[in-house]
Amino acid sequence: MAEVLEEHGTDRWNFSHLPEVVVFAECRDDVVTVMKFANERGIPVTTRGAGVGYVGGCVPVEGGIALSVARMKSVVEIMPEDGVVVTQPGVILKDLQDAVSDLGWYYPPDPASLNECSIGGNLATNAGGPRCLKYGVTKNYVLGLEVVLASGEILHIGGRCHKNKTGFDLLHLFVGSEGMLGVITEATLRIIPHPQTRAMLTATFPEFVDAAAAVQALLNAGHLPSALEITDEFTLKAARAYLGENSLRPGKAHLIVEIDGRAKAVASELKELEEVINGVGALSIEFHADEEACEQVWQLRRDFSYSLRATGLTKLNEDIVVPRSKLVELAAFAAGLEE
Amino acid sequence: MAEVLEEHGTDRWNFSHLPEVVVFAECRDDVVTVMKFANERGIPVTTRGAGVGYVGGCVPVEGGIALSVARMKSVVEIMPEDGVVVTQPGVILKDLQDAVSDLGWYYPPDPASLNECSIGGNLATNAGGPRCLKYGVTKNYVLGLEVVLASGEILHIGGRCHKNKTGFDLLHLFVGSEGMLGVITEATLRIIPHPQTRAMLTATFPEFVDAAAAVQALLNAGHLPSALEITDEFTLKAARAYLGENSLRPGKAHLIVEIDGRAKAVASELKELEEVINGVGALSIEFHADEEACEQVWQLRRDFSYSLRATGLTKLNEDIVVPRSKLVELAAFAAGLEE
Repeated sequence: MAEVLEEHGTDRWNFSHLPEVVVFAECRDDVVTVMKFANERGIPVTTRGAGVGYVGGCVPVEGGIALSVARMKSVVEIMPEDGVVVTQPGVILKDLQDAVSDLGWYYPPDPASLNECSIGGNLATNAGGPRCLKYGVTKNYVLGLEVVLASGEILHIGGRCHKNKTGFDLLHLFVGSEGMLGVITEATLRIIPHPQTRAMLTATFPEFVDAAAAVQALLNAGHLPSALEITDEFTLKAARAYLGENSLRPGKAHLIVEIDGRAKAVASELKELEEVINGVGALSIEFHADEEACEQVWQLRRDFSYSLRATGLTKLNEDIVVPRSKLVELAAFAAGLEE
Repeated sequence: MAEVLEEHGTDRWNFSHLPEVVVFAECRDDVVTVMKFANERGIPVTTRGAGVGYVGGCVPVEGGIALSVARMKSVVEIMPEDGVVVTQPGVILKDLQDAVSDLGWYYPPDPASLNECSIGGNLATNAGGPRCLKYGVTKNYVLGLEVVLASGEILHIGGRCHKNKTGFDLLHLFVGSEGMLGVITEATLRIIPHPQTRAMLTATFPEFVDAAAAVQALLNAGHLPSALEITDEFTLKAARAYLGENSLRPGKAHLIVEIDGRAKAVASELKELEEVINGVGALSIEFHADEEACEQVWQLRRDFSYSLRATGLTKLNEDIVVPRSKLVELAAFAAGLEE
């Protein structure tokens, strides 16, 4: 009992506040009952999905009820004919993506926690990942929502049409609202045809500024990668210390360029990308020709995270955004903070 | 004077109501002045862009002030390094797209009126066109807005980062709000690398249901076209009567499949598409290998519109949406209405 309270009083960060009680909703009507009960009595309610956030969003700082939707974990319907999946909020993102991709379809949003985060949390935080460059964030895939308001009223907003623009956009107001406007009990999400394959080019550069120049050059050459990531010198040092000096080619910046599409298209684009990347002075270029090879690189990328922890320094996960042209300035600023 | 009032009392449809006065705002502060003046006196204000809508959105049904932003037509800034264009609301969509594409960049939303509609109207109506299948509608490209509220207060919402998810999404509440929440005086829009080329496959089918099956088949095979359009039997009859029997291959349904991307990728995907389309029993297939050939097909498509007018029947433009699986049912329903 104490363990359950404790578990629902925190997330992946180190901040915690115990709820008075944890309620495990198993259906929408459970949520309605809780909200009516709490609303009439002025009891705080903090909704919780998988609880794997890093910013305290699901921590019940006011005490009261921790309302878990983790048991509402059914994929209600997958309908490729409409390009739609209907899901409960407790479904783990990876499970949803797998179910959809088994039918040859694709739900692109890819936060780093995709193996353990739930759709409800994705909606509450408008989650996105590296693929957002080409595919956008969670919001771009939300077609309809069923929401229980603080009063216990049930709201159905949006629908299942991909193009639906009538009236004020209340639907997307709920996405990213961090549970403050209501409890999402069902979501209708857009799915798209699954790209046939993906491939990757990785490169190292003398300096961060060269990797940033490579990003600008390849976008300017008309390429829209499915993912782009630059790793800075500090992280590379940690990775070489943790994974071995030869785990990464020499260089002070590392760039991942992932593309997807038809198999033949991807192969020829990879060659075009090589030319662009060589043109901005890469120290080394490697190719990763298929899904499996790409996954190995992403695994390496995740190992960077463990490498940073292994430095013994305190690691805080915080996402920040800057306009693309400010990347170099940002890296210089961050390097300055190290001193 | 009377002409100016009349011109600003209607749109492209046949409904009209005269304003008492037309104000041509030339900058944001003009808009502020008008809104303060009108708000203090309870005078209705109807904002107007290019005035080329078909549903009366810019018709000043309450009289009062027609507030035109047509003279606010500067593209303020194009910055590919940030993937951003900043524009005033009176800029014509085509001019914006051309300015961006001259630099090798792309602003995808493509309502049929793109040669004459303005960005302000696009934002007010959340405009979209055939490309929304792959690229989404106007909303997906809005990063930041400057809005003058009814009170005359100036609101700056959003910014210029492509991924920016902090706080309630008031930004997108304004997109598609039909001028009812405020007057948009500046917009920061997302641009993406321009696809290298595009190409097209057109096909005719025995029946509408076959063309709809082709759409499902090609999406299920993992293709995500940049545009898809089906034309029904009634329209094809009108087109053959107006443009000549040989303007179109035989068949009761016509399908346009446009794809875009790298030149080599597009060429090989076209062959894959041919196989899929043949597999569902097309009567004829034609290829259109480059931008110019694609534009010829879109011109033919626009001629369909004139063909319908030439039938002598009253033509009402109305957009409707249904889930993709209901296309056949919709066509049958529409055919039923003809009787």
